[in-house]
Amino acid sequence: MAFATGALNYQFLKFMIETDTELLKGIANQLRIHSIEATTAAGSGHPTSCCSAADVVAALFFGHMKYDPKNPHYYNNDRFILSKGHAAPLLYAVWAENGFVPVAELLKLRQFGNDLEGHPTPRLAFADVATGSLGQGLGVGAGMALAARQDKLDYNTYVLLGDGEIAEGAVWEAASFAGIYKLNNLIAIVDANRLGQSQATAFGHDINVYRDRFKAFGWRVEEVDGHDIEEIIEVLGGVGLDDKPLAIIAKTYKGAGVSFLQDQDGWHGRPLNQEEAARAVAELQPSAKSGLGVPIPAPTNLPAPELTAPASYPAISYKLGDQIATREAYGTALVRVGGADLRVVAMDGDTKNSTFSDKFFKQFPERFTECFIAEQNLVAVAVGFATRGHVPFASTFATFFTRAADQIRVAGISQANVKLVGSHVGISIGEDGPSQMALEDLALMRAIVGSTVLYPAEAVATEKLVEQMAQHKGLCFLRTSRPKTPVIYGNDETFPIGGAKVLRTGDKATVVAAGVTLFEALKAADQLLAEGIKITVVDAYSIKPLGKAEILAAAQKTNLTVITVEDHYTEGGLGDAVAGELSSAGVKVHKLAVNGLPRSGHAAELMAAFGIDAAAIVKTVKAL
Amino acid sequence: MAFATGALNYQFLKFMIETDTELLKGIANQLRIHSIEATTAAGSGHPTSCCSAADVVAALFFGHMKYDPKNPHYYNNDRFILSKGHAAPLLYAVWAENGFVPVAELLKLRQFGNDLEGHPTPRLAFADVATGSLGQGLGVGAGMALAARQDKLDYNTYVLLGDGEIAEGAVWEAASFAGIYKLNNLIAIVDANRLGQSQATAFGHDINVYRDRFKAFGWRVEEVDGHDIEEIIEVLGGVGLDDKPLAIIAKTYKGAGVSFLQDQDGWHGRPLNQEEAARAVAELQPSAKSGLGVPIPAPTNLPAPELTAPASYPAISYKLGDQIATREAYGTALVRVGGADLRVVAMDGDTKNSTFSDKFFKQFPERFTECFIAEQNLVAVAVGFATRGHVPFASTFATFFTRAADQIRVAGISQANVKLVGSHVGISIGEDGPSQMALEDLALMRAIVGSTVLYPAEAVATEKLVEQMAQHKGLCFLRTSRPKTPVIYGNDETFPIGGAKVLRTGDKATVVAAGVTLFEALKAADQLLAEGIKITVVDAYSIKPLGKAEILAAAQKTNLTVITVEDHYTEGGLGDAVAGELSSAGVKVHKLAVNGLPRSGHAAELMAAFGIDAAAIVKTVKAL
Repeated sequence: MAFATGALNYQFLKFMIETDTELLKGIANQLRIHSIEATTAAGSGHPTSCCSAADVVAALFFGHMKYDPKNPHYYNNDRFILSKGHAAPLLYAVWAENGFVPVAELLKLRQFGNDLEGHPTPRLAFADVATGSLGQGLGVGAGMALAARQDKLDYNTYVLLGDGEIAEGAVWEAASFAGIYKLNNLIAIVDANRLGQSQATAFGHDINVYRDRFKAFGWRVEEVDGHDIEEIIEVLGGVGLDDKPLAIIAKTYKGAGVSFLQDQDGWHGRPLNQEEAARAVAELQPSAKSGLGVPIPAPTNLPAPELTAPASYPAISYKLGDQIATREAYGTALVRVGGADLRVVAMDGDTKNSTFSDKFFKQFPERFTECFIAEQNLVAVAVGFATRGHVPFASTFATFFTRAADQIRVAGISQANVKLVGSHVGISIGEDGPSQMALEDLALMRAIVGSTVLYPAEAVATEKLVEQMAQHKGLCFLRTSRPKTPVIYGNDETFPIGGAKVLRTGDKATVVAAGVTLFEALKAADQLLAEGIKITVVDAYSIKPLGKAEILAAAQKTNLTVITVEDHYTEGGLGDAVAGELSSAGVKVHKLAVNGLPRSGHAAELMAAFGIDAAAIVKTVKAL
Repeated sequence: MAFATGALNYQFLKFMIETDTELLKGIANQLRIHSIEATTAAGSGHPTSCCSAADVVAALFFGHMKYDPKNPHYYNNDRFILSKGHAAPLLYAVWAENGFVPVAELLKLRQFGNDLEGHPTPRLAFADVATGSLGQGLGVGAGMALAARQDKLDYNTYVLLGDGEIAEGAVWEAASFAGIYKLNNLIAIVDANRLGQSQATAFGHDINVYRDRFKAFGWRVEEVDGHDIEEIIEVLGGVGLDDKPLAIIAKTYKGAGVSFLQDQDGWHGRPLNQEEAARAVAELQPSAKSGLGVPIPAPTNLPAPELTAPASYPAISYKLGDQIATREAYGTALVRVGGADLRVVAMDGDTKNSTFSDKFFKQFPERFTECFIAEQNLVAVAVGFATRGHVPFASTFATFFTRAADQIRVAGISQANVKLVGSHVGISIGEDGPSQMALEDLALMRAIVGSTVLYPAEAVATEKLVEQMAQHKGLCFLRTSRPKTPVIYGNDETFPIGGAKVLRTGDKATVVAAGVTLFEALKAADQLLAEGIKITVVDAYSIKPLGKAEILAAAQKTNLTVITVEDHYTEGGLGDAVAGELSSAGVKVHKLAVNGLPRSGHAAELMAAFGIDAAAIVKTVKAL
């Protein structure tokens, strides 16, 4: 039996004496029974992945964690993230056995319309985030743990990982981050059951490997027999006794507790048939115990953090014609908005002097988190803060959010209230070359469920959109640019999400632009006007939802002819958005976009070469 | 002075005696001079990030690596990946000093039209892959190292990383992989210069942290003073002496060699002005030495691997009406194609029994690599194999390729010949729920520069498309489905990339579908026909390039009315592709797609709920 590092404390001794380990073992078996019966009823699912973790989970929820089982959202509840989301039935069983979910519901697992889905989502009050895309839980947990510290709350955050998912780099980004910030209120538990989906994991039961890795990443590590409740409870008693995050490596067996499942190949993601389920339940039933009525330790009654949205933000005062890059306006806006809105926190991936989030960092260092060059974790930490009522603004070069595409996808499924701000978009960044140019970000961000995608052309629009991002609930992406652009809007202009601005009107064609190309469109309009050709120019600052009504109204006055011009690849960006939304109304969209692999060069050279500058617009208008 | 682990060998002693360390120090300073002058001429770039690595790079290229400087592509050259791609001028300086690039070219750095871009791309013969999105080099290097072993070649692969990029999870996916496969022909060199972009790295010069991490991930680790040529050369002498990959942690100073730059904050990504450059060069010049004429050790003359494309593949024999999921047909196709095409290798992320790549694994285990649950590395390893003339097919659930979105983006910039095969797409996977459903993959893959995106509906199309993926040079994505679908094409049908198939003709509307929705469209066509309404049904198996001509021709016979129906989100998929390409021709596209957050349920329930089934198509046709 391993002893927890650090001094034994009174709490722990008291708990060890009081803990009824037989009861916990019995509850674990009850959780196994539920998991097996539910997956058999569903005809799909991962019962053996539930069985390996059942003892650990029983010990956590019925013998260790402090939470109000009647109110999963209570702000000082200990948090639990099932990073190995395929063990969902185990989590559902817990919340049935603690009385929150009616037991009969469990048999509706995976049925259409039931919130007990194949993998947890925040449709359930007890799931803060969607899991099931492996390796994402620890970063979110790190964000929660940091939020607890900031909010002066004493809840702990527990993350249950599978051993297979330890191969995901995102786990190590999070581990490094937690080590750096000494998040001793974060506990990772690795359910090392040896078997992956298609074969054994790389390290099987050589759990020294996991121990050495977490240690090297700045964690305290404890190893336990994951089916020995005493050991588990003892090690859990040491939570918070050190200044490091704690990793518990639990050596377990897939299918544990059932003779014909335990440690057997070929059972991943496979439910038992009725007969097998009956046999398994017969083995487990004799020692199974109900969790109903078991007293759950109450969370501490600390003051709730004040996290309410302000009614308004201070005014802005720009001068028309001032040259300010939207990325810089973003930094200014964040300081202004964040000054009035204490929910706002910010984080960056070591690009804060480029994204201008460093303005916020300098003003409000206690609300800023440097996440270093680890964009997956940057997004995960933001999601973690969002689950705790904060409004996180995460920034990096827009193209490096592509590194976190899966975290962003899952944040969409989680309906997370995160704000992503990507700078240095498009070929207009110039000399750094294609690896630094975001040319696919609109495609990616548009395809995130429930997302809002904003693309201001100048400072006033940026400021107003940052305000709205803070107020709008849901995942928002703000696309900022490197080049300076002139202020063209008055300080009182409003920029509703889903709107568009008509800046010039004509009859020949409607040019829809955004960001840097808006100024090319305006230049083209001026040149064409000198030749007596009038065009309409629309600023599509809201890419999703698109300012559909404004664009359609404009197009209807230009013979339904629309030219889109964008600093983005041809696919999935502004042009596709306009065509996809308005072609059914007969709008004919001619796309000007970056249609090949760019290279280094001056912004103007590149915009000319790829046909997204004023000259290209003029030429296209004339050709129509 | 540290001694290399393992026995000293004759080669090493001989080299130590022969090595002119003063010459290498002089070459390092010449590389510094070039890096400073080039970035000053360009007016942008990262001279101080070049200076920190100059000694290591000089030692590698002029005192250790075996390669033919006249033929960077020679198949048995040692490989070098500049993972910290922002130090590009240093790499260009090397290839000028070894005679491959005219020295005068260096001053054209970052100019439009010149291949010496801000970050390296394979437009340059000596860059196998694009770098600049940090943390990607080691995985590619691991793929190359594994390819060397498979091809029975003795080249080593050297990857130079910055210390900042060590925070990227992708580095640890690669490190774990290299440790598991004991790639002792892979050498990671960490240029630990302490300073990131916006602040110091998390660990500064505490290089024990890096040592402990690489050790825990299965590497042999050596620490060196990165400005001590003797130490560097000595440690390099130990390459291959162990059965583990070797990590060399080089303690360096950013801006090393120039008094007013060395170890100073505020110099990241900042070129020197003319006066500063002159001062820096004045400091470096006295000890600078040319690399021209320095003998470079020749690579071993081993037999070149036979990696040529076959003229054809064995025939297929399916029966019309057979029920086969496209994911399973993919596995069958890979065995058939790979049997005839020895360039083909395959890899998977522990989903091989779901993607059916396990068919290939069982048949050709020596050409299959299990990458475990680490999709970024899965793609990076595939890219590494592709650079060595193999045709890698990497598979996982389609939505988990989103985890590797940035690697895929950069593979596009690298014009890498990789084949990605994503299974389990869309809501038609059913019960597992949204985290497992690929609903954004078409948007993502379409927006990759130079990509080909294919989406077969049944087995024959899958087989033929896999053949073409093997023959087509460039990044291809094949989207396969979970449900079984009937064979509807004859064995001799051809499926050219960029084509589409018209399966029904009518006058009312053209329905464009792909994958599982094709069968809904056919069902709808039958139902409508029974009511006397005729529609055209098009199988858009080639999403990018789109079968534009076929779809337009069909639409022209249905009053330009097109209905697209897809198992993908509304944004960036088939509907946007058709609208984006054809709205300029007046085609009116009505999109049926997944327009909200899905949930668990039966496939049919979900397809009905989200309006992408036969009933929805019938209803839409009637409404038009």
